[in-house]
Amino acid sequence: MNHRLVFRLLGTICWLIGLTMAFSLPFAWPSVGSQTEFEARGFYALIAAIVISAAIGLVLRNWGRGAPDTLYRKEAMAIVGLSWVLATILGAIPYLGAGVVYNVVDGVEQPMGIADSLFESQSGFSTTGATVLTDIENEQWVPRCILFWRSSTHFLGGLGIIVLFVAVLGQGSAGKALMRTEMPGPKSEGSHERMQHTAWIFAAIYCGLNLLLTLILKLEGMTWFEAICHAFGTMATGGFSTLNASLGGFESKAIEYTVIVFMLLAGTNFTLLYFILIRKPGKFLGDPEWRTYMTFVAGSTLLVMAMGIWVTTDFDLRGDMSASEELEAAFRDGLFQVVSIITTTGFGTADFDLWNSFSKALLIVLMFVGGCAGSTGGGMKVIRHILFIKILRREIEHSYRPSVVRHIRLNGEPLTDPDLPHSILVYFGLIALIFTASSQILVGIEPDSTWVAAGQPVSNKLVDSASAVAATMHNIGPGIGIVGPTRNYALFSAPSKLLFTFLMMLGRLELFAILVLMVPSFWRDR
Amino acid sequence: MNHRLVFRLLGTICWLIGLTMAFSLPFAWPSVGSQTEFEARGFYALIAAIVISAAIGLVLRNWGRGAPDTLYRKEAMAIVGLSWVLATILGAIPYLGAGVVYNVVDGVEQPMGIADSLFESQSGFSTTGATVLTDIENEQWVPRCILFWRSSTHFLGGLGIIVLFVAVLGQGSAGKALMRTEMPGPKSEGSHERMQHTAWIFAAIYCGLNLLLTLILKLEGMTWFEAICHAFGTMATGGFSTLNASLGGFESKAIEYTVIVFMLLAGTNFTLLYFILIRKPGKFLGDPEWRTYMTFVAGSTLLVMAMGIWVTTDFDLRGDMSASEELEAAFRDGLFQVVSIITTTGFGTADFDLWNSFSKALLIVLMFVGGCAGSTGGGMKVIRHILFIKILRREIEHSYRPSVVRHIRLNGEPLTDPDLPHSILVYFGLIALIFTASSQILVGIEPDSTWVAAGQPVSNKLVDSASAVAATMHNIGPGIGIVGPTRNYALFSAPSKLLFTFLMMLGRLELFAILVLMVPSFWRDR
Repeated sequence: MNHRLVFRLLGTICWLIGLTMAFSLPFAWPSVGSQTEFEARGFYALIAAIVISAAIGLVLRNWGRGAPDTLYRKEAMAIVGLSWVLATILGAIPYLGAGVVYNVVDGVEQPMGIADSLFESQSGFSTTGATVLTDIENEQWVPRCILFWRSSTHFLGGLGIIVLFVAVLGQGSAGKALMRTEMPGPKSEGSHERMQHTAWIFAAIYCGLNLLLTLILKLEGMTWFEAICHAFGTMATGGFSTLNASLGGFESKAIEYTVIVFMLLAGTNFTLLYFILIRKPGKFLGDPEWRTYMTFVAGSTLLVMAMGIWVTTDFDLRGDMSASEELEAAFRDGLFQVVSIITTTGFGTADFDLWNSFSKALLIVLMFVGGCAGSTGGGMKVIRHILFIKILRREIEHSYRPSVVRHIRLNGEPLTDPDLPHSILVYFGLIALIFTASSQILVGIEPDSTWVAAGQPVSNKLVDSASAVAATMHNIGPGIGIVGPTRNYALFSAPSKLLFTFLMMLGRLELFAILVLMVPSFWRDR
Repeated sequence: MNHRLVFRLLGTICWLIGLTMAFSLPFAWPSVGSQTEFEARGFYALIAAIVISAAIGLVLRNWGRGAPDTLYRKEAMAIVGLSWVLATILGAIPYLGAGVVYNVVDGVEQPMGIADSLFESQSGFSTTGATVLTDIENEQWVPRCILFWRSSTHFLGGLGIIVLFVAVLGQGSAGKALMRTEMPGPKSEGSHERMQHTAWIFAAIYCGLNLLLTLILKLEGMTWFEAICHAFGTMATGGFSTLNASLGGFESKAIEYTVIVFMLLAGTNFTLLYFILIRKPGKFLGDPEWRTYMTFVAGSTLLVMAMGIWVTTDFDLRGDMSASEELEAAFRDGLFQVVSIITTTGFGTADFDLWNSFSKALLIVLMFVGGCAGSTGGGMKVIRHILFIKILRREIEHSYRPSVVRHIRLNGEPLTDPDLPHSILVYFGLIALIFTASSQILVGIEPDSTWVAAGQPVSNKLVDSASAVAATMHNIGPGIGIVGPTRNYALFSAPSKLLFTFLMMLGRLELFAILVLMVPSFWRDR
């Protein structure tokens, strides 16, 4: 292992994080000295975090001086995994330093502890959007500059994923095959320059969409602060809001429909967005993954609408709507929640925890689907599900026609990577194993009293815990019951919060970059 | 497809089923004319079912006359799948004909309908042990001879699995690899005589253990009727009892410990039981699957005991036990339920639905484990889980050492079948897909009113439904909540009962033999 190269690149990442923190400082500026002492504390916590990040970055870059430039697979995996660990720790410093209040227990304000801060930081970088904060509108609890830092972690996390996808994951055999084979220009596979070029284009599209959405949201009535934070939350498919009632708190249909469109874009492969940019929309519409993604969205929305209108009254809980109002509400709320979950954003406009069991179950299933490969969306990705179904269909045929070898095709072309079916099955296997084991552990370590304190029935512990594990490992945020869309993760014990932190990181980096860090032989020299 | 051979063998199976039905007739004999008209109706229903089975068998064998003897893979799969379908239909006739009462709604006795009868018949043959009958002790509702037929279907189902495993599944590449490679005698793979010989030995061991257990249970205080029925329920890992309170109704520690031992034996690979018979216990104790199986049992029992004693009072619900009494109850109830679930028997001695969430979650996980390959136990089988974990560990290493090819070893020997890892992953994938899709469908088709009628909270619909799907597809029987150990499947709607019937068959035949029946190209000529 070329340790020095790992150190050098990690050092650069520390500096990048420190630099991003600096952008949150202006939001505290007018209040130093003039406003509350508490606001000032947020400002100084950020300054401290920036200094620490810069210092650690300096030390790491110093250790890594003169390292050879060659990046092998092991170094790449180590950098990806460790940079997320490092970012989580550095990103937690502002919360801890500012003494952010996340909850009140028996009349006593609770400042965020280490587990809370790591959870919130990881939730931001992994673009999950799960929170332990119970009142983000209270400026005596959460300084504005810290709230802005919280949303900034989404932006940075989303950017990291887009760049990582191209620069690192694109080099692995599975990553390469998951990327569109119709990439524009000559196919110089593994060419470093081409990769870098693509990474820059993707980063530009990402930043451009963030800017565009900010402007639209501002025009639709948000303040600049709100508009920037919600653009970050949307384009990174994160889900951190600036209101306790999430996006629904603005009570604006225009904002909701706007965010639906941009969530869908954020969950789309950025290669396809590039095709729109270079005016080749045909490739966009013909992409099998995107078509399946949109089919899932449309089909799930129709099912949620149908169940919610005909079987129950999910969209008209007060019972005072006309038929057309109920239909519009069903379409908007249904579509919003389906898109919010499948893209793994997690914004809320309706409390789907009050919906019928079928719709809730469907949303949990959608948590396991996720967005398209090469997007900021988390989850398992639509393309893996397409291939998964194709593999299983082939195996059923194989069971009675063992001599017939049939290749799996995507859009008419056989897969270029012969190992891909195997690695898809392995991925599903790991997800099933991690989901089951984590749910079992969570049920074991979290006492029943948490449900009692939340006023939730203890009999729902199993399904609530499973939904919390799914919502964190797939980077969504809200689940059902105790972690429903109007609730949060504040009441969980510190060990559970650390488990969630681990799961968010695991899911965000598609398992392997984190799993290998725990294998001793990974660290031994090759 | 050699249709005639399929017909001929299906005809033989019809005759076998008719013959087995005849063994239930004596239990109605003393009551014809002398006892109730209802008892006589059970007798005539059995006679009718025997005549129908014989007639259909005759027709099928006539169609299949002069068929060539060669059994290809497709024919074998068709016979396995169709024979289970046929057995389910024929086995349902006695319930339907006898007008068995399964429930009372608003004071009106409900006779079993087609869906109920198919469910009960499939539950017997698939050795699931799930029931729609709400009062089996009421002789005005369920004639004794029908109750005996119900237990007989377990015996026949268990025998079928043991013989099938050797004769049919043993021929496929996956089946062969799952069988012990240390099979006694010269390795003449695929030799038809050797297969037949092994099948006879296994059938003899199975019948012998049934006989032995019947005698022991009789000595421990059961009537002959009860002893035979419970031996059938135990050795087939079925779970049908003759008491409403299941095995716990006998309130005998001796019976409970006896059944624990025989359930463990029934969940053991019959090849290993043969090694005991020929006095080679070393091979038995050294078998990696059996050791893992016993480790799961011991580990799970300890966890259930620890959680139930220290965190809650699961084993002393009335709070009147001494510490040593509670420890004995925890050991006996914990071990019994763990063994009952992992072997997929489903007998009940304690209402584990009242246990803590962790123990309930653990039992649900154990449902997915199942017994050893080559046993009558259902589920996914321990060996698949061993290989699953080994495959995933290898893949994590493979992600940073792509050039190192490492073979998966079992007991120090590399696997002989190079396709086995792939088919293991496919199996897990199919199970995950079928489990998820079936749970989602069940939540959709079963109305909330079923939970209201059962006095169960509707908020538990998701987890109850998922447990019902797991309990049927893995052939266990009881789940949690609405299908908990003191409850049954009576209240479900007919479509749900048919879904369960399908799942029981699917799980029993390890998916493929049923899945292929639904593929059109399977039925076209090769």
